[in-house]
Amino acid sequence: MGTTLYVCTTCKAGQPVPEGATPPGAQLHAALLAGPVPEGVRIVGVECLSACNTGCAVSLTKPGAWSYVYGRLTLDDVPAILEGARKYAATSDGIVPWRDRPTVFRKQSIARIPPHPPLDEAAE
Amino acid sequence: MGTTLYVCTTCKAGQPVPEGATPPGAQLHAALLAGPVPEGVRIVGVECLSACNTGCAVSLTKPGAWSYVYGRLTLDDVPAILEGARKYAATSDGIVPWRDRPTVFRKQSIARIPPHPPLDEAAE
Repeated sequence: MGTTLYVCTTCKAGQPVPEGATPPGAQLHAALLAGPVPEGVRIVGVECLSACNTGCAVSLTKPGAWSYVYGRLTLDDVPAILEGARKYAATSDGIVPWRDRPTVFRKQSIARIPPHPPLDEAAE
Repeated sequence: MGTTLYVCTTCKAGQPVPEGATPPGAQLHAALLAGPVPEGVRIVGVECLSACNTGCAVSLTKPGAWSYVYGRLTLDDVPAILEGARKYAATSDGIVPWRDRPTVFRKQSIARIPPHPPLDEAAE
């Protein structure tokens, strides 16, 4: 199974969004879909990644790999996000070497979550 | 497979940690292990959840459910974290009703990530 890039489509990025206007998250989602979307990457919009204080936010995830969440993203970051997704998809464990990560991924990580199935770093 | 509560053991919570001292993240990990750990919950220490700006951080995850990351946690939050983990473990999808969540989970969510396998909320 391949990589999924989740994009929070409801994100207001801390701004007031007028009635009927497209939220920044939905704009980011549309811009990412316009691609070019890297091979092996699926882009999926979701309603709320609970990162409202640090939006716009996306998450990169795939089975057996670390999942990452990035925030404070704008439309200017679309090429870097797609490039980072391409590199993530090319790994087995989700860990792209630090120096190979797009700057926006190095500087705007919100969190990461260990792979499924869970790691056994402790013996409880 | 049950719930895993990951605890970032390297977290310095934005403070200088003197050579040889136990980082706040490791202190939080130890306090959580002291429990009582809810049934069906496994507590696992990990080195870095990449939430360094919002530590101490933990993540709740289980297969087929939404994963959550919480931050700005202290030793005072241990009972609430364990209670929140118990409620999370009792769900099938990871979503505890809002009003049932501990205050610290309502106010200090950093992010959440959709379940594995991926959702199909979009049709790409």
